[in-house]
Parts: sequence; structure tokens; C-alpha cells
Amino acid sequence: MSVANRKTQVIQRAFVTILPLSAAPSGPAPAQGVDGLRAEVVDLLQRARVAARLLQTATTAQKNAFLARTADRLRQQAELIEQKNAVDLDASRSQGRNAAFLDRLRLDRRAAMAVADSVDQVRSLPDPIGQITSGSRQPNGLRIRKERIALGVIGMIYESRPNVTVDAAVLCVKAGNSVVLRGGSEARHTNLALCDLLRAALTDVGLPADAVLYPLHTDHAVIAALVGQVGGLDLAIPRGGTALIDAVNAHARVPVIQHYQGVCHIYVHHAADLDQALPILINAKAQRPGVCNAAEAILVDAAIAAQAVPRIVEQMQAAGVQVRGCPRVMALVGPPTIPAQSQDDGCEFLDLIVLLRVVDDLDAAVSHIAQYGSRHTEAILTTDLRAANAFTQRVDASCVMINASTRFNDGGCLGLGAEIGISTTKLHAYGPMGLQHLTAERWVVVGDGHIRT
Amino acid sequence: MSVANRKTQVIQRAFVTILPLSAAPSGPAPAQGVDGLRAEVVDLLQRARVAARLLQTATTAQKNAFLARTADRLRQQAELIEQKNAVDLDASRSQGRNAAFLDRLRLDRRAAMAVADSVDQVRSLPDPIGQITSGSRQPNGLRIRKERIALGVIGMIYESRPNVTVDAAVLCVKAGNSVVLRGGSEARHTNLALCDLLRAALTDVGLPADAVLYPLHTDHAVIAALVGQVGGLDLAIPRGGTALIDAVNAHARVPVIQHYQGVCHIYVHHAADLDQALPILINAKAQRPGVCNAAEAILVDAAIAAQAVPRIVEQMQAAGVQVRGCPRVMALVGPPTIPAQSQDDGCEFLDLIVLLRVVDDLDAAVSHIAQYGSRHTEAILTTDLRAANAFTQRVDASCVMINASTRFNDGGCLGLGAEIGISTTKLHAYGPMGLQHLTAERWVVVGDGHIRT
Repeated sequence: MSVANRKTQVIQRAFVTILPLSAAPSGPAPAQGVDGLRAEVVDLLQRARVAARLLQTATTAQKNAFLARTADRLRQQAELIEQKNAVDLDASRSQGRNAAFLDRLRLDRRAAMAVADSVDQVRSLPDPIGQITSGSRQPNGLRIRKERIALGVIGMIYESRPNVTVDAAVLCVKAGNSVVLRGGSEARHTNLALCDLLRAALTDVGLPADAVLYPLHTDHAVIAALVGQVGGLDLAIPRGGTALIDAVNAHARVPVIQHYQGVCHIYVHHAADLDQALPILINAKAQRPGVCNAAEAILVDAAIAAQAVPRIVEQMQAAGVQVRGCPRVMALVGPPTIPAQSQDDGCEFLDLIVLLRVVDDLDAAVSHIAQYGSRHTEAILTTDLRAANAFTQRVDASCVMINASTRFNDGGCLGLGAEIGISTTKLHAYGPMGLQHLTAERWVVVGDGHIRT
Repeated sequence: MSVANRKTQVIQRAFVTILPLSAAPSGPAPAQGVDGLRAEVVDLLQRARVAARLLQTATTAQKNAFLARTADRLRQQAELIEQKNAVDLDASRSQGRNAAFLDRLRLDRRAAMAVADSVDQVRSLPDPIGQITSGSRQPNGLRIRKERIALGVIGMIYESRPNVTVDAAVLCVKAGNSVVLRGGSEARHTNLALCDLLRAALTDVGLPADAVLYPLHTDHAVIAALVGQVGGLDLAIPRGGTALIDAVNAHARVPVIQHYQGVCHIYVHHAADLDQALPILINAKAQRPGVCNAAEAILVDAAIAAQAVPRIVEQMQAAGVQVRGCPRVMALVGPPTIPAQSQDDGCEFLDLIVLLRVVDDLDAAVSHIAQYGSRHTEAILTTDLRAANAFTQRVDASCVMINASTRFNDGGCLGLGAEIGISTTKLHAYGPMGLQHLTAERWVVVGDGHIRT
């Protein structure tokens, strides 16, 4: 190891484990440059692995005590966190970031209290580790069971919302994993303060502080280094914009579960109950347009387009939504509806904008979704059972909604208690990921001198 | 699309769908070169995707009829397959391949009949698609269920044994997936004949022939192209040597479940019943040394080394096993036991060779396994319940065996019916992978006008 590398390690260790919580989190800068960065990441991954091994024997009581201490410290230090967050907010403001960006970045005292409440909620969830998910006695007398174990070391790579720092850390540790967190540089001061808090809470209860780690290097190359080492992480979870996820995928040599975009469609079938359909459409689009389970496109069956389209447009406009219509929609309504462009198909607006299309039938709706959907959430509104069944069978999405708002595709709404993300890949997890998805199932086989013949 | 690319596609289509089964499978060569190769892979992946969509509505009866027709055709065409296999065997013989290699490559009439029997066995397994794995009614009245669906398009990249061609294809299709197969070039004639047979069986029952595809390009770059396209495959399963798996990992832009090496250890605890332990050790090492769940290293507790080591060495030698001993072993026994070298730690011998080490205690055994194990199968032999529990909790492996041979880590022995491989990664599946692991679970939510507030 070069002298420069060794220096980086020492600084990193000194910083994270010894620096008092009140010190400036951007304090002593690590050695920058490619070598220093790689050395830091290798060191972080090794320390995370050692912590993961120690967590294997942590009890539920210890892990819950860590969550309780985290919530306590969040409540006690809410003011400090607000101060650190103010530094991040000021920097983003001076860079001319818009109100929505600043809103996502904000973690004031009230928000910190809310994060503490969500930690308490995770504490109340059952511990998945050690659960026996199936078992049998084989004809030869071997006793076989499948048991939940931790994955090991998880890398969480995310943007903006600093509450993810705490949410991800408590979910990972409750499921017996250590976690390397890498949030966006815009939230750096907030995230480092939260990370110090989490590490202190681990120490409080006798768990290894290195179960929660955060790289000090600010370079984007940290992401590639984190996910690029075979066997370094057991799982990488990128959560953020397309550019972030693409960067992780491009460099990953470890398993990745991506939380990709939500291009959610609602198909209004010709047998839909329009009085029931309209509130669902408005809720799915306008209740919280900036999130991944908001609807981005509405497909109206041609057989009811003449009645349905004007009502949908009217109510969308009343809710402040800009409607972009296909030619068949534009033949039915005038301004302020504007003609859709080709790039509106498959677009994740994340805004008060909706694409409105007339489609010939269920086949056409399914084809459109197959081409432009993102495997997140797709909905059909209908009173026809056969149409509901056909749509469910033929659409590929982590969640298919029948006569319900797309907004229900959420770990809380689906009974998971808390979620670390919504997977749009099918491996391991498809849809909202809770504690259970941060574990693996291994086999335990008990014999009494059994040999294979 | 260039003219060259279009030509490749046409040749590929004409070959796979029209060429009679008796024609030379190496028949019309596709346009070689990088462009031709990429065009072929893009075309294969597109056709596999179309077939996967059609398979979404296939019934269990249709899929089982495909398996029945496959078994019939295997029995009818066993002689043809033996002939094609003879071409591959001759080529490998003239390249000076050893007997073990030729044995893995051989698929004679009798072996073809055995493959047909294994197809019948998969036919008898329950169809995983459509299984409801959990469900609930939420307090707001939303009815939620999780249902098994197919993954989509699976890429199977493997070496040597041509029976994998049939085993993988029938497992993938029974689980509703299309599959792109890429076997080793040494088995090319056999694999193409089997692939033609599988495609004919699909056509027999009205399922899309493109549910089973096999690239014609022989270049190794096909592997990189197959796994390198984001969204092209839903899952890649490499199964073979380290070089193959590393090549897939290096190029993969799709999820990979690797069937990596099996460096399996057996720890003989000081409270082991030696009379029971010895047959287990011999079985684990010598019953079939060339497979991944064979034991490669035995760790003997220092407290019983003086009694245990000579007996183990004697019986291993009687079974034709070469013992490589650590210095503490060499102090107890003489030739023909030879001193172990450092590279013997963590080595997958796949042969009648075993590493024998004396370790201080359970801690030392667990540490050795953490450093050299491959997360496949680890065993403890003991009559002490606390030791068994501690070992189980602290060892990281897809399967932990207590007083049983490592050879039981196998889909058949663990009740899966048939397996497509043994995963040594923890995501999605850890250990033997059966039909269930070729599926995903998606959410279906049925409301009655539900909106989120």
C-alpha cells in the first residue's frame, strides 16, 4: 500500500469513529485522486464486511435497541440536523435550484421528528432473520429447512432526500446487513451528520459502528468504485434519476436491484364506471405528481372516448393538470389541451402533466404499455371481469391495479410496513421492497450420518 | 440495418424454423464478423421476447404437452442424437481431450433415454405460474395478492454436458419463459440437434418455436453480446468453469445468477462420532469427486486430531483419494500423504484429492471457511448441539449440513424435483434453483374505486 493510501485510511478511520458529532462533517478532507479514492472504497468495503460478520450474531433485542437509540438521538439532535441541512440548502439555493429540488432536500426539525417516527415503525416490524420459510422431512430421514439470513453488505446509492439515509440504514441493519451509503453531494452535510448519529447509536448498544459507512470522497467515481468490485457488495440499490441508475449499471460487478422510473398507465376500458373512474384518474395523476407511482398516461377505449375524454379533460384541468392529447383526443376537445408529441409516449413527467390517448381496444392498450411502460404500475378501470383478467395476465408490471389508484403501489399501502425502494427488475424482488427483501434464504440440512448412494 | 445484418437475420430465421431436423446443424453458416454476430444476437433476443409474450397465455396443459412431445422425440431420435454426439466426441478426441472430458460430453442412446425420463419428471412437477403466494385484505378494503409470473427471457450459458440443453429448456418453458441457450463449442452438433428437437416439439403443440433459441455464431463474443444488452435478457445463468462465469460477469448488463465453484469444507468437531463421521467424509469426497457438492477440504478439530487424522487418511487412501496435509497433519502421518501447498486452500480439486487440515477449534474452522469457502456447501460433524448451532449461524453458505454428506446439496435431494443450477449468489436464489426460481412474484391489487388520501 502506498503512503498516500495509508494516509487516506487513517484519516477516514479517525474521522468517522473519533470526530465528535458536533464537528464540521466536511472536516479533514481525505486524500483526493484516483488512488486515494480506490483505497477509501476498498477500506470501507472491508470494514463493512467485518461488521456484517459481527451482525450475524446480533439479537433482535440489540438491533431494536439500535433503532430506539437512533430515534432518540434524532429527536435530541433535530436542531443540529436542521443546521447541517441549512448549509446544504444554502448551497443549492445559491446554485439556483428550484423549489421542488429544495423541498426534497429539506430536513428541518419537524422532518427529523418524522424520520424518528418512521424508525420507531421499523422497530415494531418483526425481525426477518431466522424465520423458517419452509421445511420438510425427506423420505430418507434428512430434515431440511430454509432459513432467512442477512445478505451481507448492501450499497445504497441515492439522491436528494436525506431521510433515505436513515430509512435505508435502519432497514438494512434490522435485516442484519451492514450498509455503505452514498447520497447526492447536494445533501452531503446532512447525510454525514445523520451517518455520525447512526454510528453513535450503533456504538451505544454494542453493535459495530462500521455497520453504517459513508465515503468521504465526493468524486462521482466513488459510485463506480463501490459497485465495481466483484464480491465487494452483496447488493447495490441505486435509487434516483435515470443517469444515476445507468451509471451504476454501467460499472456494476455486483448484483443490482434498480428502482427505475415509473411510467404508469391507466387504461379506461369501455365497461368502466366513469363516475368511479374519474376520481381514480385525478388521484393517480394529481395527488402527488412528483412520485414514481403517479400516473403519467391515460389510455381511453375508443368505444367510450366521446363521453369520457371531455369529462377527463375537464376534471384534469380543474385539478391544474396540463393535458397532452393524441390526434383522436384533439378531435374531441380544444385548448388548453395541447397536441401530444412523440416523446410524450413513455415520458415520466413527474409533474402536473398527463398524456391522454384514445386506443382501439384492450389489445391496443396492452401493446402500448408493452412498448412504453416501465414495469412499475399499470391499471385498468372496468366492470368487466374478463377484461380485468386479460389485462392482469398480459401486462408486465410489478403491480397491476384493478379499479384502484396507481398511488397504492407503495410498501406501506401493500402491508410491508416500510420500503427501501420499488424494484422494476424481476429478480429477487419485483415491486416494493421491505425488510424481507434485504435477506436471503439458505438451506439447513440435519442428518444423522446420512450419505448419498 | 445494413444489408449484411439483414442477410444474417434471414439466414438465421430460415435455418432455425425451416431446416429439417435431419439436415446438418452446422449447415448454412451465418455471416461472421462483429456486425453479423451482433445482428444475430439482437434478432435472437427480439424473437425470444415475442415468444415470451406468447408464453404468458400458455396453459399448463400446453406446456406439459410440449414436455411430453420432447420426451417422445428424444426416445424416437435417440440414434440421431448419438450420431451428432459422435461428431462432437470425435472432434474432442482428436484434440486430445481426456476421458473425464469425453465422459461429460457423451450423450449416447442410453443417456438420451435418461434425459427423456428427466423431462417426464419435470412434467410431473406442479406449474409455478399463477400460484398465489400470499394475499390479504387491507383495512381500506383493497384486496392484495402476490402471484407468480414468468421472468421473461432467460439466457443459459454453459459448458460440456449437452443434457443441460434439454434440462434448461424444459425448466424454462414450464416456468413460462423463453430461453436462449449457448453451450460450449465442443458440444455444438449435439446441442443444435437437441435445440431443433425442442423447437419441433414446441411447434407440435402450438407454442412458439422461438421459445427455445440457439445462436449459430460460434465466436466467444456471442456471450458478451447476449448478456451485454440492457433489457435484453431478464436473467443470465452461467454454469461452468471460472473463466466462463468471469466472462459473463465482465460483460453483463442484465441480472446474473452464477453457479460458481463449490469449495466445500467439512469440519470434524471434537464431539463428532467418528464411526459416523468417516463414511460421511468418504462419501462427500469420493462418491462423485467431479461435481460441485463434493467436499474439497476436511478440517479436523485439534482435540481429536491424534485419533481422527490417521483413520481419515487410511480410509481416504483406501478409497483412492490423495491426501494433502497441513504441517499438523504431516506430524501425525507419513507418505503417501503429501504436504499441502498454500494454493490447496480454497482449491476446487474436482478430483480424488482432499486437503486435510487440523484447526484449533470451531472459531478457526469458521474463519478458514470465511476465507476460502465459496458459499456453496459447508458441513459440521458433531454430537454437540451448541457447536452445530454456532456453526450454522456463523457459516455463510447456501446450504449448511449437520452430520450429513455435502453431496445432498442438490435440487433432487432437497425436494425441488429438478434444478437448473446451484446459485452461489444470495440474490433471488441461494443454493439449488428449481422451477420456482425461474419466476417472479408480482402484486395484483383489486379495488372498487379506491383512491389514496
